[in-house]
Amino acid sequence: MGSRFGTIFSLTTWGESHGPALGVVVEGCPAGIPLTVEDVQHELDRRRVGQSKVTTPRGEKDRAEILSGVFEGVTTGAPISLITYNADADSSKYDNLRHLFRPGHGDYTYHMKYGHRDHRGGGRSSARETWGRVAAGAIARKILAHAGARVYGFTREIGGIEMETFDESVIERNIVRCPDPVAAERMISAIMKVKEEKNSLGGIVEARAVGVPVGLGEPTFEKLDALIGQAMLSIPATKGVEVGRGFAQSRLTGRESNDPFEIRDGRVRTTSNNAGGTLAGISTGEEIVVRVAIKPTSSIEQDQSTITTDLEPTTVKVEGRHDPSVVPRAVPVVEAMLANVLADLYLRNRASRIDWD
Amino acid sequence: MGSRFGTIFSLTTWGESHGPALGVVVEGCPAGIPLTVEDVQHELDRRRVGQSKVTTPRGEKDRAEILSGVFEGVTTGAPISLITYNADADSSKYDNLRHLFRPGHGDYTYHMKYGHRDHRGGGRSSARETWGRVAAGAIARKILAHAGARVYGFTREIGGIEMETFDESVIERNIVRCPDPVAAERMISAIMKVKEEKNSLGGIVEARAVGVPVGLGEPTFEKLDALIGQAMLSIPATKGVEVGRGFAQSRLTGRESNDPFEIRDGRVRTTSNNAGGTLAGISTGEEIVVRVAIKPTSSIEQDQSTITTDLEPTTVKVEGRHDPSVVPRAVPVVEAMLANVLADLYLRNRASRIDWD
Amino acid sequence: MGSRFGTIFSLTTWGESHGPALGVVVEGCPAGIPLTVEDVQHELDRRRVGQSKVTTPRGEKDRAEILSGVFEGVTTGAPISLITYNADADSSKYDNLRHLFRPGHGDYTYHMKYGHRDHRGGGRSSARETWGRVAAGAIARKILAHAGARVYGFTREIGGIEMETFDESVIERNIVRCPDPVAAERMISAIMKVKEEKNSLGGIVEARAVGVPVGLGEPTFEKLDALIGQAMLSIPATKGVEVGRGFAQSRLTGRESNDPFEIRDGRVRTTSNNAGGTLAGISTGEEIVVRVAIKPTSSIEQDQSTITTDLEPTTVKVEGRHDPSVVPRAVPVVEAMLANVLADLYLRNRASRIDWD
Amino acid sequence: MGSRFGTIFSLTTWGESHGPALGVVVEGCPAGIPLTVEDVQHELDRRRVGQSKVTTPRGEKDRAEILSGVFEGVTTGAPISLITYNADADSSKYDNLRHLFRPGHGDYTYHMKYGHRDHRGGGRSSARETWGRVAAGAIARKILAHAGARVYGFTREIGGIEMETFDESVIERNIVRCPDPVAAERMISAIMKVKEEKNSLGGIVEARAVGVPVGLGEPTFEKLDALIGQAMLSIPATKGVEVGRGFAQSRLTGRESNDPFEIRDGRVRTTSNNAGGTLAGISTGEEIVVRVAIKPTSSIEQDQSTITTDLEPTTVKVEGRHDPSVVPRAVPVVEAMLANVLADLYLRNRASRIDWD
Repeated sequence: MGSRFGTIFSLTTWGESHGPALGVVVEGCPAGIPLTVEDVQHELDRRRVGQSKVTTPRGEKDRAEILSGVFEGVTTGAPISLITYNADADSSKYDNLRHLFRPGHGDYTYHMKYGHRDHRGGGRSSARETWGRVAAGAIARKILAHAGARVYGFTREIGGIEMETFDESVIERNIVRCPDPVAAERMISAIMKVKEEKNSLGGIVEARAVGVPVGLGEPTFEKLDALIGQAMLSIPATKGVEVGRGFAQSRLTGRESNDPFEIRDGRVRTTSNNAGGTLAGISTGEEIVVRVAIKPTSSIEQDQSTITTDLEPTTVKVEGRHDPSVVPRAVPVVEAMLANVLADLYLRNRASRIDWD
Repeated sequence: MGSRFGTIFSLTTWGESHGPALGVVVEGCPAGIPLTVEDVQHELDRRRVGQSKVTTPRGEKDRAEILSGVFEGVTTGAPISLITYNADADSSKYDNLRHLFRPGHGDYTYHMKYGHRDHRGGGRSSARETWGRVAAGAIARKILAHAGARVYGFTREIGGIEMETFDESVIERNIVRCPDPVAAERMISAIMKVKEEKNSLGGIVEARAVGVPVGLGEPTFEKLDALIGQAMLSIPATKGVEVGRGFAQSRLTGRESNDPFEIRDGRVRTTSNNAGGTLAGISTGEEIVVRVAIKPTSSIEQDQSTITTDLEPTTVKVEGRHDPSVVPRAVPVVEAMLANVLADLYLRNRASRIDWD
Repeated sequence: MGSRFGTIFSLTTWGESHGPALGVVVEGCPAGIPLTVEDVQHELDRRRVGQSKVTTPRGEKDRAEILSGVFEGVTTGAPISLITYNADADSSKYDNLRHLFRPGHGDYTYHMKYGHRDHRGGGRSSARETWGRVAAGAIARKILAHAGARVYGFTREIGGIEMETFDESVIERNIVRCPDPVAAERMISAIMKVKEEKNSLGGIVEARAVGVPVGLGEPTFEKLDALIGQAMLSIPATKGVEVGRGFAQSRLTGRESNDPFEIRDGRVRTTSNNAGGTLAGISTGEEIVVRVAIKPTSSIEQDQSTITTDLEPTTVKVEGRHDPSVVPRAVPVVEAMLANVLADLYLRNRASRIDWD
Repeated sequence: MGSRFGTIFSLTTWGESHGPALGVVVEGCPAGIPLTVEDVQHELDRRRVGQSKVTTPRGEKDRAEILSGVFEGVTTGAPISLITYNADADSSKYDNLRHLFRPGHGDYTYHMKYGHRDHRGGGRSSARETWGRVAAGAIARKILAHAGARVYGFTREIGGIEMETFDESVIERNIVRCPDPVAAERMISAIMKVKEEKNSLGGIVEARAVGVPVGLGEPTFEKLDALIGQAMLSIPATKGVEVGRGFAQSRLTGRESNDPFEIRDGRVRTTSNNAGGTLAGISTGEEIVVRVAIKPTSSIEQDQSTITTDLEPTTVKVEGRHDPSVVPRAVPVVEAMLANVLADLYLRNRASRIDWD
């Protein structure tokens, strides 16, 4: 249970970090959409390991194959199965972790829940699972393009260093994906320093969607905000999510917080966008704004207190190849999940009203 | 779509603010649980309007009736239907709102999505809908009691005023439900002041669950954290949610963030609880800690710019009876949603493993 | 679990035979549809007890109230809650059944599954639950009307007496709802005879949908046929379902069975309709034809061998007020379930393709 | 939509007849179950093409690979992904079918629903999709074995030739899987004859489950019978399904139809089993008995009237390699779907009651 997300446009991911392969089945993609493996690979490459000095050197190419649902370059409405074979799964580093619980990881909780677990690289709980989310997100983006919408994301903060300026064109030009080139340099330095110290950093990722039609989101429990909440807190290492001004909005007065309506450029707009593009859980047509808190990488090569599966105290130093900060690679994952939510709600919204005469 | 929450233990709410009645159908409650209407009413009274000077004076008694699923005081496994009839629905105050969009409310988005809407008191988007969530939560608490778990909540912050001390026994003894009696007084003053100014305040609610068994949460998209994210951001007026240290955890290093394991009092425990009781989306047995950002009440009796349904500029002053801050009444709603999530995951967890021999 | 049916257009029923009330929550009905309580009551009256000498004399009026989701006579897209209060629930006849299991009923299986059960009139397993299905079906019919489709049904066979002629206009003019007036008389006589003998009869109900658009049905597991299968076998007392020629089609050759395509009246048609309006689980535009086998009423006032809840042998004579054959009253229930399936698939089909340019 | 079946134990199938591969993702299999690829292959081989002279000679080996969810030979609770690569997909035979609609197939309905379709071998609507159902069923059988239950099936009728004797041990010893060796010979002759005539035959498959615990099935819409109805009518080429005596039961009186309860061998039993192992949609502990009507193969190498995608009249002779009767190969598919339903309900039933003290 739990490996499926979405109602009409849905993804089901499968696979473990060190198993033979990983994949995703995307269901409910409408027929008629041009789709190539390159569309998908482009996004996967943004998530891939070994992109730069701030990411883990694990040598996965993460090449996607499309096994179904596309015929002569166009979607057919059938489930789209995407797969990637694990190539550089070096499991030997994990032998010593078999009988103990790494702090900050799911080793203990999986052990208690399932009794039997694949300990290699976190098994099912590894963030390698997000491969499928990004692949599905590439398809979701196609659907959104049809709706006139586009999703992008960036690093807002790493290790407490916040961006101060915003230039979208800068984002993909630095290895931390920060829209502020000065802050980007400081973030990179901070990461390199913490990497040397065999420690790690967290941060905040922001994703935005522009051009989203008014009306996406299903009241009550499947509000746009609620599904964003589920989507984001389902990503490994996330600890918080906010929409619009978020926690800061809770410190405003109603007067300051409410976004007045106006007619601008011939359309209904709000003067401000504290709400982050949703009202009562339904998109307003303003930019959707989401921020996600990412904890520092749990795998650190330092001695940490823990216990063995026999409940004996011990220490563990987590070797292997890890990102000193997963934040830059989390950007395409957060984007993908926002796209997956919006694509599903876009299709669902088609059923919301009938023109009766 | 969207009015149902939960997989095995689920709730389906229905009803509008000014319609004849509101209700909830709770499905998947196991048979064999003693349940009286008083169990439910106790929680509903904590959410009820007119409790104190900081809440709206609307005179709803919110009396629950149980119409099915309970026989001779014990649940039968059949759906439990709970209903309350609206008594004090004064719709006249809403006549002038029929043809315009209140800022901060769902008027515009519902209008665009559905074409035809019940404008009275927010209709379906009104927070009166949360009646059913709290009623269901009372049943969920019974299930959790069977698991040895208990949920409670409190106001952490209102209008930027933060609690500084914590005494659980104080919570229900002040009208803002703050565990710090000094901060409580300051919060009450702030609310009374903003009420006079015809303005409103937001704040932060925290909910905790103690005694939760290890193993609740379904990996990947239905992690405990993910379902908490959906549950909390489905509550009206919420803008953010975090688990454990949350956003603050994103500013720690991995060394600081990881909670070491130890044996304490004969059980596996973590030395600290930055994680807020979950690892890889599954409960650890430590206290579950959730915080929710609540925006200031959107209904304020001040002139605000907006447009009419004919897209003409106008101003609106929202009269009617509104909470100057919904935070104190949001406490039982946040608790209820945490209980609803946990009860469902508790039942689902029964299917996670098999003892093969 | 199990009290909800449908993906976009869905119904959740609740209530027991002898509880205070029964109801249904209809979710996913699009906004903009004119809907009055009379639209619903009309269908409910066709299902009602006490209609004629061949039905039980239990005196329920089955009056529906609409409690939500309709504003000023038009649906709003919000959940539609419908309720009826039980008026003539005489539970005294059931006291002697509390500690034994009636043959043919769910007493034993509910007892074993739930431990604690409402024994009065079958509790949750009573066919009174179908009230909500018929109410929802009335709304589904409105959606189908928008699509140009219409559902109707009739009694094909009772106690082995088969209809031999077909005149749709005759159906509602006789109390067994048979389109063959001669067979109708024979069926009525058979029912009156079996009633005197304190025995009961089963039969076969057929439902048809005309004007159904091409394209309804979701491959693989949610084929139109598959959802019909679930819908029909979820109705109490049903033992079989077939689509088109059904079991008889299994005795044809491929040559005889295949329906050739042709252009007729300017449209794509099939020359014959052995398939009953579906191919590969998707509607063809031809008439949907469904037949459902209904077993004889289990409640008979004759001594039958059974055991007590203490597992002692005993006999039971089921008193109370029962239909000697439920077939005539099953007609509107079968129709309603077909309408519920089609309305859901009609709305879902809107998401099946995108016009890309 | 529609490619997923089951609530806790679920399967999601993907793949087309002539695409690169087919597969299934099995979710919700509990951890702790020994599982090898041979367990799965054994069942797949029973469904495989080219088994005998009565099946199509298409040369697929249908070898399964397990790509996830099993670690060191034991399930981990994670999704189990199974895949098979298409080896002998000769698409050239389908070129002439690209622009016309084969009678009895989904060509027309897919064309109308999706606009763009994979015409090769039926694409997604091909019965090759059932590979994944049988693979999942092999896992479901393991879960059922833990419950003490076992599923088997057989051919009851082909081309109107009915079995007259029953010897379970005979079933897998003849190529039509008939428990009556004399009828089997007659069925084989009938198939060989129809094959020569380039025609085809249908028939009836029966599946049974023995040792099923009492209590499986969720009232109202997810009754054991209802899910069997969905499961069976989701199998390609099926036209009807019945449980227990089925349609024949509709011709009995209540007296004849009701199965009396008794104590036999120290357990609660019914004297007869007309009900086929369910009462009110919940298993009784008696044998589950299901029959499924299979239509004759639609692909026949005879001229049939049809139209082109340009709506011009034409004729078509369907070449390629087809089963003259799919009935013998449908047996393991019907069994698998029964096993899939029961495994899901077995796991769901764990949540039906609580022992309160």
